Amino acid sequence: MSEYTYPINDILFSMLSVADIDRLNPHLDEPVDYDLLDAILGEAGKLTEQVIAPINASGDKEGSRVEQGEVYQAAGFKEVFQAYSEGGWIGLSGDPQYGGQGLPATIATAVNEGVQSANLSFSLCPLLSLGAIEAISLHASDELKSQYLPKMLAGEWAGTMNLTEPSAGSDLAAIACKAASDGDVFRITGQKIYITWGDHQMSDNIIHLVLARLPGAPEGVKGISLFIVPKFILDDQGNPDQRNDVKVLSVEHKMGIHASPTCVMSFGDNDGAIGYLVGQENQGIKAMFTMMNNARQGVGLQGLAIAERAYQQALEYAEERKQGMKADRSGRASIIEHPDVLRMLMTMKSQIDAMRSLVYVAAVENDLSHLADGEVKAKAEKRTALYTPIVKGWITEQAQEITSLAIQVHGGMGFIEETGVAQHARDARILPIYEGTNGIQAIDLIGRKLHADQGVEMTCLLDEIEMELQNALSTNARDNAIKVQAVLEEAKECTQACLDSMKTDSTLGTALAYDYMMLMGYLVGAWLQIRAQIASSIHTSMGEAEKTSWLCSVDFYCDHILPRAFGYAHGIKFGQASVDRLNRIAFTR
Amino acid sequence: MSEYTYPINDILFSMLSVADIDRLNPHLDEPVDYDLLDAILGEAGKLTEQVIAPINASGDKEGSRVEQGEVYQAAGFKEVFQAYSEGGWIGLSGDPQYGGQGLPATIATAVNEGVQSANLSFSLCPLLSLGAIEAISLHASDELKSQYLPKMLAGEWAGTMNLTEPSAGSDLAAIACKAASDGDVFRITGQKIYITWGDHQMSDNIIHLVLARLPGAPEGVKGISLFIVPKFILDDQGNPDQRNDVKVLSVEHKMGIHASPTCVMSFGDNDGAIGYLVGQENQGIKAMFTMMNNARQGVGLQGLAIAERAYQQALEYAEERKQGMKADRSGRASIIEHPDVLRMLMTMKSQIDAMRSLVYVAAVENDLSHLADGEVKAKAEKRTALYTPIVKGWITEQAQEITSLAIQVHGGMGFIEETGVAQHARDARILPIYEGTNGIQAIDLIGRKLHADQGVEMTCLLDEIEMELQNALSTNARDNAIKVQAVLEEAKECTQACLDSMKTDSTLGTALAYDYMMLMGYLVGAWLQIRAQIASSIHTSMGEAEKTSWLCSVDFYCDHILPRAFGYAHGIKFGQASVDRLNRIAFTR
Repeated sequence: MSEYTYPINDILFSMLSVADIDRLNPHLDEPVDYDLLDAILGEAGKLTEQVIAPINASGDKEGSRVEQGEVYQAAGFKEVFQAYSEGGWIGLSGDPQYGGQGLPATIATAVNEGVQSANLSFSLCPLLSLGAIEAISLHASDELKSQYLPKMLAGEWAGTMNLTEPSAGSDLAAIACKAASDGDVFRITGQKIYITWGDHQMSDNIIHLVLARLPGAPEGVKGISLFIVPKFILDDQGNPDQRNDVKVLSVEHKMGIHASPTCVMSFGDNDGAIGYLVGQENQGIKAMFTMMNNARQGVGLQGLAIAERAYQQALEYAEERKQGMKADRSGRASIIEHPDVLRMLMTMKSQIDAMRSLVYVAAVENDLSHLADGEVKAKAEKRTALYTPIVKGWITEQAQEITSLAIQVHGGMGFIEETGVAQHARDARILPIYEGTNGIQAIDLIGRKLHADQGVEMTCLLDEIEMELQNALSTNARDNAIKVQAVLEEAKECTQACLDSMKTDSTLGTALAYDYMMLMGYLVGAWLQIRAQIASSIHTSMGEAEKTSWLCSVDFYCDHILPRAFGYAHGIKFGQASVDRLNRIAFTR
Repeated sequence: MSEYTYPINDILFSMLSVADIDRLNPHLDEPVDYDLLDAILGEAGKLTEQVIAPINASGDKEGSRVEQGEVYQAAGFKEVFQAYSEGGWIGLSGDPQYGGQGLPATIATAVNEGVQSANLSFSLCPLLSLGAIEAISLHASDELKSQYLPKMLAGEWAGTMNLTEPSAGSDLAAIACKAASDGDVFRITGQKIYITWGDHQMSDNIIHLVLARLPGAPEGVKGISLFIVPKFILDDQGNPDQRNDVKVLSVEHKMGIHASPTCVMSFGDNDGAIGYLVGQENQGIKAMFTMMNNARQGVGLQGLAIAERAYQQALEYAEERKQGMKADRSGRASIIEHPDVLRMLMTMKSQIDAMRSLVYVAAVENDLSHLADGEVKAKAEKRTALYTPIVKGWITEQAQEITSLAIQVHGGMGFIEETGVAQHARDARILPIYEGTNGIQAIDLIGRKLHADQGVEMTCLLDEIEMELQNALSTNARDNAIKVQAVLEEAKECTQACLDSMKTDSTLGTALAYDYMMLMGYLVGAWLQIRAQIASSIHTSMGEAEKTSWLCSVDFYCDHILPRAFGYAHGIKFGQASVDRLNRIAFTR
């Protein structure tokens, strides 16, 4: 089984030299610098490599099981969750008032990259806890905050998000779970599905955040409220006491992330589960939306993380595996000596480099949107909103290709489960689906982001890219910058084409939305690769081999990955009619 | 669980109207016509839908197990294999002298499409048997033929192909299994891996075809001989008798095709397994090569088949699943009403149409290469050789995308194994690997096919495409033909660029080989889609809805699939330098 190595140098380079994390410093009490990052990420590296990664394959094999409404997770996970909690990792970016460390979320992103690479299934438990923490932090009363946040930030209690129901997946307007007032609490009844880490034995309590409808609430998304439903109701001292009326009916048998129990949850089979209203009545969906950028960027990060893990394993195998002869016939070759294997590995690496740059650029922007004020904050909010669907959609699509290539590099061994590389592809397959399918990301990009402001913020981004490419013409990245400029022009035309088509019919653009999202992903990735090429060439502490590696990555990206954008652009510019006419009849045979 | 419907109309259309199967008739004793095909395929449809498909999901769940050197296959498979054999399906294209029906292999291809769609794991047993039958038919002595072929063609005995060893995967030159003369037989010793259906309890005997080295044989591929090694040695009456010295050590735990036992085989642990030489000494690899077009096209067919099955399931789900509102807000919509779902379904369907056309065009050419004489035969051999890597490589890559899209259409349900759609993606993942990885297909195309004759046959194909597109300008396919012409010009330039680069260094082209293979796949697919558009528009017995469906498919393909070729062409034309420089150092971080 392949070992995982936390790519600390690549991450530091992305944060410091591509994403310019020091843009946060004017808004921070304690500035972020190389030494701080290196210290934190050094510890994260040890944790992810030595503690979390070793239970990835065993967790996949064992999965989890449910007995009488309780879920039992795979062996070793409880101990790892405790080590993770005791290390203070859950509260890294949490509110210091409740025990968090108050660091920028971008640093938590860098830690999470390692956690997710090491063990995607495991990573989802703290991730969902963080989602619950964020919901409570942003929307709950001070009383609820002080009851729940300290234990959750310490990792003593975990959290979950309960949104989906059998008839309400992408369409939350259809939520049917009920809430009814009962004195100063509420009683929750109904069923939820796809609840990640909906139950387990790793923490003393589990705090469920549940969307449900109050009696007489308006129909649709405007009638949904958000509740805290703890697994164990707190006693007067705030300690877990009586079991609440919530249980797990079953755990799904999934294609991947086997060690992450995906639960069907039943609330209120007896008297109704006791819940506490978070925020105002009927404002539950709005509360969810405030967390959406974080959640969706978090899934994009998972795409990067699983791609990195798969790439590392493929590279290691390609070095070790002998097959065929060396080009000069002087002996048996490692398969990394074969041009087609080099092509596969660089297809993985060059895209991972671009994906990582985008992840940290978006994370810094997201941090700015929370930390800054006034103009800077407003600007960062808009940019974050624009980046988010690209981070989630484009990166998780890339993760499919990259994890599949990792199998391919292994040849027949890749298809054998013991090799461990197939797991990454199986795990990765959920990423384009959850937290809003990639079709929904694309529609978000073209509708809520592009159409809503008539392309103003997108034009800002394209102008910024244009200026940076212009400046790059006088650097060593000149040749590549010219290649990116050609795609930038395509992107401008396509942006206008999408805006034009939505003028007459706002649904029209949605059929081309996916192509547009992918086009923008490849372009943004290329822009940041140019930035990385320039930054790496002048990096004072980077070795020559690393500099060569960056150059190879950017050159390859511009020559062999970026041109895919021409295909998408072609479809957007000339392919409106052939999607407009599609309907059921098109599939009659 | 989704039902499978044998797409008889699409298959007949591809065979008759796109692939012009009647080109075979001058070379057949009994001509092939619609009525004959309709009768045979009608029966194949019943068999695949009603008998073979129902054990697909259960076989995936159960897998197979090994006990004391014997493999026990999943429940129901033995009965289905018997029904399949008794129906005479294995011998469909077999030699009538030994009990086969002597029909063109293209018809067997059409039957196999259904078998593979219905149950890819099951299909591999008769498929490998056919490989063994072919090896014996082409290379064995008359005595061996009459001993083995009748029972194998009747499906009473199965067959396997034993090529791969732990250190000899893509590189057969490294084969180390030994054969030694022992009177008028041989004794075989050594280990083989990845042996598909290497053992089972479905037939009275299993005839292993084994590659091994005789003492003093030349090194490399020129020292490998081919042997028959039956599981049960035949007695004087030709009936299975004594157990041979061959056993299964283990069955692999794979990502997909769970019901197909992939075996580690041990030959000769005791006195050496008794084997019989097939053909001449040291000519084993040559014998394998004579079967390569069939075997590789067979895997391309599997790509088509699994894509079709996944598409059918996605389409059915998209019709049934309600989510979100109709565009006019008049009620809840089936997801097929959402533009992005239509995009996904047509991305699947339009590529499947192109893939199917290519499969049957190549199959007819392959049949011609065997059935015809003189000029026609020689021409068909060259064309078959050219098509084969595209059929195997391009189609199996498409199968990855299409089976993944089928999951995506299902949303969260797609990731749940009970839904059954994830199985298709898991099953499909082996296709780019076995029977020569797609990297090897690409190198075959650019090296053995393109470079070897300095592009003569490829130029013939491109000229043929050009002429047909020219003629299409005066038809209803004019607009689409113009789009394909643009890609044809790219393909010509890329062909020249590849030939030029190989002039100076024959290894250079290999790094761009994959891109070239994909480019040619998209182009050839588009060319045949144009042919299908014209043929469907004048088809006398096709309904209006079906004609519309074909039109939508071809339009969509030309607008949204074909433009991917521009990306590949760009990489080939301008991206030589960025692949030439790649080596280990490029991955140093």
